Amino acid sequence: MIDDEEVLKANARFYKAMNDASVDEMDNIWIDDASAICIHPGRDAIKGYEQIRASWDAIFSSTGSMLIITSDEQVTCRADMAWVSCTETISLMIDNELVAASAQATNIFRYIDGRWRMVVHHASPVPLKVAEEWPDTVN
Amino acid sequence: MIDDEEVLKANARFYKAMNDASVDEMDNIWIDDASAICIHPGRDAIKGYEQIRASWDAIFSSTGSMLIITSDEQVTCRADMAWVSCTETISLMIDNELVAASAQATNIFRYIDGRWRMVVHHASPVPLKVAEEWPDTVN
Repeated sequence: MIDDEEVLKANARFYKAMNDASVDEMDNIWIDDASAICIHPGRDAIKGYEQIRASWDAIFSSTGSMLIITSDEQVTCRADMAWVSCTETISLMIDNELVAASAQATNIFRYIDGRWRMVVHHASPVPLKVAEEWPDTVN
Repeated sequence: MIDDEEVLKANARFYKAMNDASVDEMDNIWIDDASAICIHPGRDAIKGYEQIRASWDAIFSSTGSMLIITSDEQVTCRADMAWVSCTETISLMIDNELVAASAQATNIFRYIDGRWRMVVHHASPVPLKVAEEWPDTVN
């Protein structure tokens, strides 16, 4: 149970690094070797952390503002390996216009030197779900 | 190394089950519990083997002919857990027309009772890569 919570914290740190557009934080989160694999929505696999780091650098440099909110987290732990399945709801500013998208993610972590490091991030596009009614918070 | 080969064999058995449209083989390959997760290209996550099994049943019932060839397999083993990253090239017959598509897959396996069982299959659409020239086999 404690492991599950620690893995979920590592997963949350990864999305915070995205929301903060922080490559330095990605360095802390990812395993720094050739076994790392990252699949951005609709893209080929990027293999090895050096190339993955370059992809985050490119994304953070080209994207104005990006906010990712996760939901439906499901975590499975096995000894020093764990993975999280979750849904990503992504808001982006593109050409001064707010765009929303949704993705399904599988994130694999490995426990190394006392903390959970990301070894695989696989995100794939899914149809955006819109709430049938907006929350009744304005009345 | 032996583990790597066994995991790749399990991965190959999974794609053979798809090509054979065999739900019975899927039963042999997948873990049969609620931790199983399957993400078909462009779709939401299906959780639990019962629902995953129903999805294969629906795919195999509705698809005329389907052939999947995998490439670029990369396997990582950690004790009783392993995952394979690979590219899927999919050929489908839809309304008497041959359609090709490509996907990037992350497949997670767990070693249970002497064999590797699939616990996660995540496939996401990627642009189809076409060889610049056809192989020169007809001359």
